[in-house]
Order: sequence, then C-alpha cells, then structure tokens
Amino acid sequence: MQRIDFNCDMGESYGAWRMGDDAALLDHVTSANIACGFHAGDPATIHRTVRAAVARGVAIGAHPSLPDLQGFGRRAMAIGPAEAYDIVVYQIGALDAFARACGGRLSHVKAHGALYNTAAKDRALADAIAGAVRDVDRSLVLYGLSGSELVRAGEAAGLTVAAEVFGDRTYQDDGSLTPRGRPDAMIEEVEASIAQVKRVVLEGKVRSVSGKDVPVRADTLCIHGDQPGALAFAKRIRAALAQAGVEVKTLAAAR
Amino acid sequence: MQRIDFNCDMGESYGAWRMGDDAALLDHVTSANIACGFHAGDPATIHRTVRAAVARGVAIGAHPSLPDLQGFGRRAMAIGPAEAYDIVVYQIGALDAFARACGGRLSHVKAHGALYNTAAKDRALADAIAGAVRDVDRSLVLYGLSGSELVRAGEAAGLTVAAEVFGDRTYQDDGSLTPRGRPDAMIEEVEASIAQVKRVVLEGKVRSVSGKDVPVRADTLCIHGDQPGALAFAKRIRAALAQAGVEVKTLAAAR
Amino acid sequence: MQRIDFNCDMGESYGAWRMGDDAALLDHVTSANIACGFHAGDPATIHRTVRAAVARGVAIGAHPSLPDLQGFGRRAMAIGPAEAYDIVVYQIGALDAFARACGGRLSHVKAHGALYNTAAKDRALADAIAGAVRDVDRSLVLYGLSGSELVRAGEAAGLTVAAEVFGDRTYQDDGSLTPRGRPDAMIEEVEASIAQVKRVVLEGKVRSVSGKDVPVRADTLCIHGDQPGALAFAKRIRAALAQAGVEVKTLAAAR
Amino acid sequence: MQRIDFNCDMGESYGAWRMGDDAALLDHVTSANIACGFHAGDPATIHRTVRAAVARGVAIGAHPSLPDLQGFGRRAMAIGPAEAYDIVVYQIGALDAFARACGGRLSHVKAHGALYNTAAKDRALADAIAGAVRDVDRSLVLYGLSGSELVRAGEAAGLTVAAEVFGDRTYQDDGSLTPRGRPDAMIEEVEASIAQVKRVVLEGKVRSVSGKDVPVRADTLCIHGDQPGALAFAKRIRAALAQAGVEVKTLAAAR
Repeated sequence: MQRIDFNCDMGESYGAWRMGDDAALLDHVTSANIACGFHAGDPATIHRTVRAAVARGVAIGAHPSLPDLQGFGRRAMAIGPAEAYDIVVYQIGALDAFARACGGRLSHVKAHGALYNTAAKDRALADAIAGAVRDVDRSLVLYGLSGSELVRAGEAAGLTVAAEVFGDRTYQDDGSLTPRGRPDAMIEEVEASIAQVKRVVLEGKVRSVSGKDVPVRADTLCIHGDQPGALAFAKRIRAALAQAGVEVKTLAAAR
Repeated sequence: MQRIDFNCDMGESYGAWRMGDDAALLDHVTSANIACGFHAGDPATIHRTVRAAVARGVAIGAHPSLPDLQGFGRRAMAIGPAEAYDIVVYQIGALDAFARACGGRLSHVKAHGALYNTAAKDRALADAIAGAVRDVDRSLVLYGLSGSELVRAGEAAGLTVAAEVFGDRTYQDDGSLTPRGRPDAMIEEVEASIAQVKRVVLEGKVRSVSGKDVPVRADTLCIHGDQPGALAFAKRIRAALAQAGVEVKTLAAAR
Repeated sequence: MQRIDFNCDMGESYGAWRMGDDAALLDHVTSANIACGFHAGDPATIHRTVRAAVARGVAIGAHPSLPDLQGFGRRAMAIGPAEAYDIVVYQIGALDAFARACGGRLSHVKAHGALYNTAAKDRALADAIAGAVRDVDRSLVLYGLSGSELVRAGEAAGLTVAAEVFGDRTYQDDGSLTPRGRPDAMIEEVEASIAQVKRVVLEGKVRSVSGKDVPVRADTLCIHGDQPGALAFAKRIRAALAQAGVEVKTLAAAR
Repeated sequence: MQRIDFNCDMGESYGAWRMGDDAALLDHVTSANIACGFHAGDPATIHRTVRAAVARGVAIGAHPSLPDLQGFGRRAMAIGPAEAYDIVVYQIGALDAFARACGGRLSHVKAHGALYNTAAKDRALADAIAGAVRDVDRSLVLYGLSGSELVRAGEAAGLTVAAEVFGDRTYQDDGSLTPRGRPDAMIEEVEASIAQVKRVVLEGKVRSVSGKDVPVRADTLCIHGDQPGALAFAKRIRAALAQAGVEVKTLAAAR
C-alpha cells in the first residue's frame, strides 16, 4: 500500500507576535516542523506547539534555521559547514528537550528557508546538516527536497531520509523546483495541484514545465500553513489520496 | 570518606569575543557549567567547550541564563515561572545535544547570574527551574546555593541536588552570602579562603561575619575562573583537601 | 482654547510578523510613538512607519524600550541609570535618522512598557531618560504619565513635557493608575471613557475609584491601537472633544 | 601639501566582552569607525568610545554592519538594497545621537566586514549605502575601498568620498585587494608595508603582486587595531610620512 507523510511548518510565532493557525493545521498533517528560535519560535512558543503536537499524535520535528530572526531565516548567509553543524545540533537539542518534557519524542529534522535551499545544492553544507542529525540521534529522519544533495547527504550518513515534494510548485526537467521569481513557479489551481500530488505519489513522476516526465520520489508532502486556502487544500488532497488508496502517515510510524 | 565537587563556569566566549581560560581550568575542576547561548556561548563556543570537557573527563553541565546577552545574564528580569521553565528547558536541550554529539552526556544544571540569585530566594521561580530539569531528564543533578530555595525546590522535585559553597565569599548568620556591595563580602586571602573551605567540607560549618558558627552543606565548591589567581587557588585548595583526606569528584561519579 | 494631543504606539511589527493597523490609526492621531528595534520594529518597519507618519503629517516620536524582543519590553529589568541613558540615546538616534531620511523631524520621546512604568516611580531612572533626551536634542518633547517622576525629571532637565492621560484606565486617589491586575482597573464602557477624558481635559480632574476628585494634568491622550474598537473610540472621543471646543493637536504644533 | 587620513575600527567590545585597545589607538589615528551594535558595540560601549574620541579630537564615524553579532558581521548575507539602506540609516542614527550627546558630531560612515566587501563589487548595494548616508546627512564622508563600486556610488550620490588603502594587504592588477585566502595576500614586513603606503600616498601607485604599477587613490589609510604590532606600525608610518612632508589629518578637517 502506498503512503505519504503530510508535513507543515509550525510554531513560527515569536513573543507577542502570532503567525499561522497551528491548532487548525494539526488536524490535517502527520508531521510538524517546529521553529527552534533562530528564525522564529521563542521558548514559550516552542513549548505550546510541541505540547499541542504531542496531544494530537502528530510527529514532532526540529525546523532549524540560519540565525536570522529579522529576516525569518530566508536570507542566504555565507556560513561554513562547521557553523552549520553547530547551529543544527543546538536547535535539534532545544526541540528535543521540549519533546521529552511534554512526554513525546523528536522524530525528524527539516531545515528551514535559506538553510534548506542552500543545502539542496551545496553538498558540504548538506553533509554538515546530515552529520549534525546523525551525531545527536541517528534514529531521527532527515527531510530534504526530493533529488537534492541534502537527500544524498542524509543517505550517505546512514540516516532515514524523507524526500519532500510540493503540490503548489512546478518542476524543472532536472527535478528541481522552478525558482519562485518565475511566472510559472506556482500552481494556483487546487485541481492541478491535487493532480500533481497524486501522480507523484502513485506514479513517481512529475510533468515538468517543459512537458517532460521526470521521476520524483515522494516520501512527504509539504503543506504550507500560512497561505489562504491551505486548510481546504489539505482536506481535499487527503480525501483524494484516501480514495486512491494512499495512506497518510509519518515515516516514523511507517518504520 | 569525605568528598566534594569542584565546579567552574565555562564556555562564556561569544562569536569573536573570548572570555576565560577554559583549557587551563579543565585540569583543575570536576564539573564544567557551560553557557547555553542566552548570556554567552554561541553554538561554536558550546561545541568547542563540550568537546574539551569530554576529552578531559570533566562532568558537563548546562548553565542556563535569562535572555540577556548585552548584560551577561546579570540583570534581574521580571519573568514568571512559566517563562523560566521554558528558557531552562530550551537551554538544557541545546547543551544536551552537544554532549551527545561529542560522545558524552549531560550530568547537571546550574543556573547563571540573576537567574541563580533570584531562584535562591523565590520559591516559585526555583520550582519552575527544578521542574524543567526534572521534566527533561530526572537523572540530572541540580546545583543551587547551599540552604537556598533552589536546593529545597530540587529536593521537592525528587532531583539529586548539589548544595554549592564559595571559598571567596563571606556568610551571614542565616547561611546566605554577604551581598557583594558590602566591604566584608569577599575573602581575598588565600589562606583564609582555604580554611573556610576545609571547615565547610570537614565540619559542615562556616563562621559568619558576626562570628557565629552556621551549619552549611557542601556538595560542590564554585571556582571562579575569571579571577586572577584562580588557577593557583584551585591547585592549593585541592592539595589541602587531599591532605585532609577529602576526595574531589563529581556528584554524578559519586552516585 | 483647550487642546490635547492624541498619541498612539506604532511600528510594532518585526520582520515577518505584523502587529497593529498603523495605516488606519494614522488618520486619527496627532502623534505616533514608533518602536525603535529593542521591543519591536526592525529597520524596515521603522522606515515604513516613519514614511507613513510624515505623509500624514503626524508628529514622529521615538518609543524606546528595554532590550527585550522576546518579552516585548514588558518585563521589568534591573538596569541602572547609566544603562538606561545609553539605550535611550541609541534608540532616539535610530528613529531620528529615519525621520530625517524621510524629510521629517523627530518631535518627541515616549518610553515603552516596563521602562515607562518603572521610570514613573524611580526618579534616578527618570532622570537618566530625561538626560538622554536633553543631551541628544533639547527641543524634543518628553512624554510621561501625568503626575509621575518622569514628568518631574523632564521638567527638571528643562524639557517640554507632555503629561499623559488614559481614557480606558481608572485612577487611584494619588493620581496613579489602578494596577492592571485589579478588577476595577479598566474602563470598558465607551461613554464612561469619553466622560473621563472630557472631564480631565476640560476640568483637569479625574474621579478616583474611591470617588475622590483628583487633579490631573492632560497634555496628551494615549489611544491603544491594538484593542478592538480602538478606531471607533478614537473617532467618537475626537468628535466629543470637538463639540466641547477642544482642539486635538500635538504639543510641538502648539508651541 | 599631501595629506592622508588614518582610520581605525573601534568600539568593537560588546557587553562583558572586551576587544581592542581603543584608548591607545586614539592617540595614533585621525578617524575612528565605531561599531553600531549590529556586529559589535552595545549602547554603553558606543557611549564610552564616542566620548573618548571626542575628548581626543578624533573624527567620529559610524561603522554599520550586517545584523550578525554571532559572526561579527563577517558572513556575507543575501540582503537586498532596501534592507541595506534601512540598516545603514538605523546605525548611522544611533552613532549620531551619541556624537551629539557627547558634544561632538558624526563626520563619516564606513561599512564593516561583509557589507563593505560586498558593496565594493555590487553597485546596487553600494548605491543603497550611499543613498542612506546622503538621506540622513549629505555632509557625511563615505569611506570605501579605493577603486570600488562603493566609491563610485558615493560620488554619484554627491557625497564626499574617502578612497581607502591598506598598508598590510597586497593588490591585484585591477586595483582590488588580493583575497585573504591566498598566500601572498598579506604584507607582514613593516618596511615593505611602509614603502607601499608611501608610494601610494606620494605617487598614487601601487605595485601589484604580478609586478605591475597600478594607479590607486589614497584618501585614508586603514590601521588594523587588533593585530600585534599595530601601534608600533602606526607610529612608524606616521613618522615616515611626516618626514616625507605628508600631513595626517581627516578629510573633514581638510575640507
């Protein structure tokens, strides 16, 4: 039986500022990637988010970022592999402690924003992230863009890796995402988005913007919680996958 | 056989700035309290410090602080128990991940600066800190000023507690430290300091500034690394204690 | 002719996080107190807010805070007068540069949160804040709680001072605000609130919670932008004051 | 008569951490570039440094950086021109307020670390920095690497620009500095360094690493305060220039 994990970034409030509707999203995803304080997520926000995820049985992941609160971790920064290793160890640890304090356990790690994007292409950075995950706890699942260097680095490090796909983004012939700047980068029609996800999950293929069929591995689907219609999309895609006999569950649960 | 732990604050560099001679001190202490990033200690500094402590067999402790890099965690801040709990969980986790990544394990927690001093007198804050330690890992040893609310809170939480004494500070009749502002707060003579430590360890008593004998429990002695003569003092007090048949080792080792 | 200034805290977004409806509020106030980066307000937010205030002809004020982004500047912190002086100079300068770059000028300073509340009662802290304002630009107007130490410190420093009153808070017999924790601290009825403001402005008196008439000076009225009904209240109180022949304008304009 | 400015980065302590011997260096330079809080320099450090510079009659400059305390502003970061403009305005303002509070005035702006290096080659970033300086105060002098885009951007913005040269770095045929990574990047012999500075100042030429004479404009010489022998070098180069009839003074003084 086919299965896929639904993951969503969460806990991206900070102090007095609120972002996202985490409570509502927790009903529709199987994995929560929780901000660790470097781009969002003060200790109180992390606690609240981890507690809610444990209560709903949603798998808890650390969502480490470059140290850039002002830029929400979206600005690329020239950090070396050793620095990347250290900031990832630090942030995994912070999340793990809340998971334990709330009676749960940490199950995965997904890098955020510029750290995720840079590690998709930069193998040294990807190796540093994978090494940090392995050195803290080799049972953690590493999430990375399907086909990216981060996926390869995770496998080389002996980790279980979740190849991530997107329902709202178009793909290039090489399996990479069309950069956000381009006019054809986003899929805005829900039907088209659902069709892409179904094909990726059921057939392991995606139709690129140039019309070519590209093989893509899909272990986990990213649901963007901060976009209008995200909840409605999550419900519809789950229903469509259920009808097609695809189970939605975490990799951790699948192991 | 009597024994006492020698602890020292470490890892208090930050980014390009250096503080303390951690490498030298590691030869003379049995426990290192390592800054967790809130008052000092960026991820690279934490990594370097934890790695060195593991290499020397020195017990690793988290040294959590109020969030105040600019003030080095020394400025009291009106945080409630829930906030204190959350910042302590976060910082313990960060240190613990480095301990694991370096092949060691976290063995204790000692609050820093204003958080330590406030928790010595404020039971609600002390309970929050003790609860955070217990909820992350109940095998961690909690350090607190001998006779303080933090010691009582740790015991109430079912933790192993290390009552801390000072060789370079004088005591009041109630067992509290003479506040730093007063002219008789510090013991500057090494001989007097050694005599006080020996008496505390061997007899469980300290002579207060008013001349009264006050019972004091001594599980661990704080060595201040940033003061001139600290290394020399550490060596001499170890020699004096050895001569008196007192063993210097961690509580963790003693268990 | 009587007149009063309407002031509102603004620019309290940070990076990716939004707070308040600054654009709407700018139509209803005469003075904007703009966050300076210590409790809220990254450089881009400050720029956007100052530009909008200049475009509407609203007087620009610096709204300096304790350094506490995580706690939104609301947590009291034990800083000495010298530290307070330095953080206020720093933040005034940052705001002033944006005012100049946008073709406007800085006209006032209102401390935020815990800094404002502590300075209302602590004369040394109040003197430090007033000294900072005076030393940067003695033409700046200092805002402070009516009857507070901050008002007295500003006058002693030779500054123009704006005594601030609140329409949604009750008063004690000594002219201080009823602390937020108490059940009778807030005025929730708009009519009662308007009545209080009118009486303060026209008669210089407020009825305390114990029923006593207390003299209160009212140079500026604080409009809380983040509360439901804030805009409606601002419109109604302006209409009521206009009908009573009270002009709403800044102190700067009045000079 | 020939003249050149001697500038040095200063005020790079932060909170409890000390860096550099600012007091000693102030006797040997004519311009101080003072950290503004983003890579170093908390408000108290800025105050202390500005006060000392005013007391010695050394010209005060803002030394703005990318927001990166942990990386000391040395890590390149993908910020756009609007973000660069805003962070430069903010930091100039902070420094300017201390200059005024200390009875001095701000005279120049020199970007720090990665912001300086990126702006040397990226014209859009350079224009943003120059625009920020011009919009806050068009009488400020903009410092930039001799021959760089930042110098051109400053001139295009109508600012007085100080072209900066280095005595301890080698040059490429195109007038750029040899990247630090290369073995021939640094000049370590004091005599060779002095010879290079004299030739640059007196003849407007530098011998590149490939042996070619390259025209270089020299308005200001950077003295690195944090290197061993910096003070001795500063004294010797001043003596050598004095002997050659070159006056050492600020551009501000020269205008």
